[in-house]
Amino acid sequence: MSKNDNRNFVEQIADIETDFPRWYTDVVIKTQLVDYGPVKGTMVIRPYGYAIWENIQKELDKRFKATGHQNAYFPLLIPMSFFTKEAEHVEGFAPEVAVVTHAGGEELTEPLAIRPTSETIFGNMYSKWIQSYRDLPVLINQWANVMRWEKTTRPFLRTSEFLWQEGHTAHATEDEAMEETMKMLDVYREFAENCLSIPVITGRKTEKEKFAGAVATFGMEAMMKDGKSLQAGTSHFLGQNFAKAFNIKFLDKDGAQKYVYTSSWGVSTRLIGALIMAHGDARGLVLPPAVAPYQAVIVPIAAKKGGVMEACAQLKAKLEEAGVRVLLDDTDNSPGWKFNEWEMRGVPVRIEVGPRDLEEGKIVLFRRDTCTKDFYPLANAVQEVETLLGTIQKDMLEAARVRRDSRIIDADDVDGILKGVESGNFVKAGWCGCRECEDKIKERTAATARVFAPENTHEKCAVCGKKALHTVFFARAY
Amino acid sequence: MSKNDNRNFVEQIADIETDFPRWYTDVVIKTQLVDYGPVKGTMVIRPYGYAIWENIQKELDKRFKATGHQNAYFPLLIPMSFFTKEAEHVEGFAPEVAVVTHAGGEELTEPLAIRPTSETIFGNMYSKWIQSYRDLPVLINQWANVMRWEKTTRPFLRTSEFLWQEGHTAHATEDEAMEETMKMLDVYREFAENCLSIPVITGRKTEKEKFAGAVATFGMEAMMKDGKSLQAGTSHFLGQNFAKAFNIKFLDKDGAQKYVYTSSWGVSTRLIGALIMAHGDARGLVLPPAVAPYQAVIVPIAAKKGGVMEACAQLKAKLEEAGVRVLLDDTDNSPGWKFNEWEMRGVPVRIEVGPRDLEEGKIVLFRRDTCTKDFYPLANAVQEVETLLGTIQKDMLEAARVRRDSRIIDADDVDGILKGVESGNFVKAGWCGCRECEDKIKERTAATARVFAPENTHEKCAVCGKKALHTVFFARAY
Repeated sequence: MSKNDNRNFVEQIADIETDFPRWYTDVVIKTQLVDYGPVKGTMVIRPYGYAIWENIQKELDKRFKATGHQNAYFPLLIPMSFFTKEAEHVEGFAPEVAVVTHAGGEELTEPLAIRPTSETIFGNMYSKWIQSYRDLPVLINQWANVMRWEKTTRPFLRTSEFLWQEGHTAHATEDEAMEETMKMLDVYREFAENCLSIPVITGRKTEKEKFAGAVATFGMEAMMKDGKSLQAGTSHFLGQNFAKAFNIKFLDKDGAQKYVYTSSWGVSTRLIGALIMAHGDARGLVLPPAVAPYQAVIVPIAAKKGGVMEACAQLKAKLEEAGVRVLLDDTDNSPGWKFNEWEMRGVPVRIEVGPRDLEEGKIVLFRRDTCTKDFYPLANAVQEVETLLGTIQKDMLEAARVRRDSRIIDADDVDGILKGVESGNFVKAGWCGCRECEDKIKERTAATARVFAPENTHEKCAVCGKKALHTVFFARAY
Repeated sequence: MSKNDNRNFVEQIADIETDFPRWYTDVVIKTQLVDYGPVKGTMVIRPYGYAIWENIQKELDKRFKATGHQNAYFPLLIPMSFFTKEAEHVEGFAPEVAVVTHAGGEELTEPLAIRPTSETIFGNMYSKWIQSYRDLPVLINQWANVMRWEKTTRPFLRTSEFLWQEGHTAHATEDEAMEETMKMLDVYREFAENCLSIPVITGRKTEKEKFAGAVATFGMEAMMKDGKSLQAGTSHFLGQNFAKAFNIKFLDKDGAQKYVYTSSWGVSTRLIGALIMAHGDARGLVLPPAVAPYQAVIVPIAAKKGGVMEACAQLKAKLEEAGVRVLLDDTDNSPGWKFNEWEMRGVPVRIEVGPRDLEEGKIVLFRRDTCTKDFYPLANAVQEVETLLGTIQKDMLEAARVRRDSRIIDADDVDGILKGVESGNFVKAGWCGCRECEDKIKERTAATARVFAPENTHEKCAVCGKKALHTVFFARAY
């Protein structure tokens, strides 16, 4: 986009109310978060999008390390034979694997998969590294690219290559591995709420929806503005499935050789898609301060008038010193153009500095989440901006929570589920636990079982009427 | 390695004087920096090795951002046809590319290369993003994995997959692109000296040694303890080669359509190999504090005696508060075992805390670089450790510089070059500039032209005796 383009930005973006999918595509492209790569289904994460990912990484990495994990890096290429060692795993992942058959000018003796996930290669190395109970637990995470060949792709939500982190841990006991699984799910939940301002519903997934090779998968689900659900992170209890497939054994204190228990957990650049669709509005992005590339943008008004640019530069220096990520937009564009641009790009706070206000020792702070503005004393600007950023972070979570909670309903039958999801709700309904009923709901409503509710509040299955084993959150999902 | 293993560590490592290659392999494996991956030529970077990479990333990333660069992420897979657009580039990289031919269960219509470097895909996107002089310069870096299928591999030094950063910039003028090329070379030099404590020789490379597709390549060369050179980073001035191949044009201020000028520059996990071989000794690793995973390790002596563990824990908390990366080794192993382990793993400072010294208000600080120790007052421990870390960082650079400078000699003929490199020197010699003479030196001495010296101090070419155009550093190289 040329910097002199004076079109109205809002008109460039499809209407969020009537064409949400198009609105999403317009927003991700026009705010320069991302572009399409030359190979179908790939994306280029542009600097503005990558800066969000860097902030997500920083926040999550801090939490992983505080819970005792270390980072490492495992190879991209995995022998195809590794996948066949765990029966469910190969069934789930083989169809979407990208395969290297030639390298260095020659055909390879064994084709190699580009990792779609790394349980198998971690398993292979853990079987070598783990010998004794003294070597346990092993708590390793990696930040990496992975590849899953998908038919239908959308930037951040589903692309053939994406960036993620994958934790892989090994433990002496089942309890410890389960504790780890739940601990990391909770790390994700806390991060989603406090950094992304996204309230999430966490819980166990059905057999149908679980990770291929897991004993149990726990997910966190976030409601997007169209009422659909986005799976924003998962944590898997793998039991001894991969330990047996890769022969990861240890000598326990009692002198016996035992298989370890493992877990794995991951979140990806999908989270950027979640941010966009959980908070965005008709004007474009609305970014929570904790992960916004710029937390504040300074826009000089009548920049050529005496003292304006000096005041802007001083304010910028002071904010940077206080650790605020701030941009001073000193381009030739008009203030109105800048207002539009940075609103579209979701900067949480805009600081307007004009000659008349300056004379009165005032500045204007505009908050993106509510699109409201007010005067503040210039002398106290840094503190006011910091306070406002904290307020926005909390208010965005609260607004998202109110929005979501108003759109969770209960249903007793399939018609109720259908009506509920058609009008953009998460629907809680009873389920007997059988695959047939789960499939029937999907067929009739296009909704899937997202996670089990913490308590079973329904007596009967919405499909067959038999005793409900679980109350399940049903929703249409990304 | 089992934690109760009481063997003498030093005996596990081959002798550095008589078998340097084996010493290297022993050190990287036994200190758990790295392990061999299941696919030939791949490596698993283990937590202890990856922590070094994280520190390298943090230091470099800070410098890239301070010089105006932003991070982004470009796709792993590049259409094979992209490589053929720049003639030299395809010749240099096609032979070592890994190729994806199948994905999602089907054969692809066009085979895809796993990136060996990303000039082509950056070029493709830049041609789309750059329209006007207002869009320039574009200053983007990415942290990524790349793959080059190599016949002979060694952990960190040459592996089929490695981690690196690659900066790709586009500029309106030749001068600006050249300025960028030299600026980033200098960023690398300053980083190598101040963070890795490695003195480097920087300079232009010959046509033969330059990057495939560059107009000119500038490298930094580091001397390893065996006198061989390791290319530790390169910065390329690409002229308009990639601009023309990918049609990256802009409308200049004068109204004319012009091709941009580009640069690219990179360093990789090779730097970890450089660290090991520039500083390591008979006992194992010697790590400079700026990038060491742990800067200090606390070893309790007679840990069960009253007050020792408490003092250790307090000291650890204080050091952490001061920002020192510190480990308290509270395992059951003997102090002697711990001394050996952490010396082998290269921790810059060991803090010994014993009951008798504690009574006298003292601790012992051992410095790994000189293998000397002394008493220090406990009351002042944090400051003493911080000062010592700074001293070690500087002394390691100075020691490496003295070592290297004593091993740079001049030669006037090929025999002189041969004798020089055989006894582990960098040899400065005159060169007429022709490929034949360069090839002859390589044939006869196994040394290659590393970089041009800043000044030409030789009158004649060491091979043909004609007028020397450059004085060149010749060395055997990794």
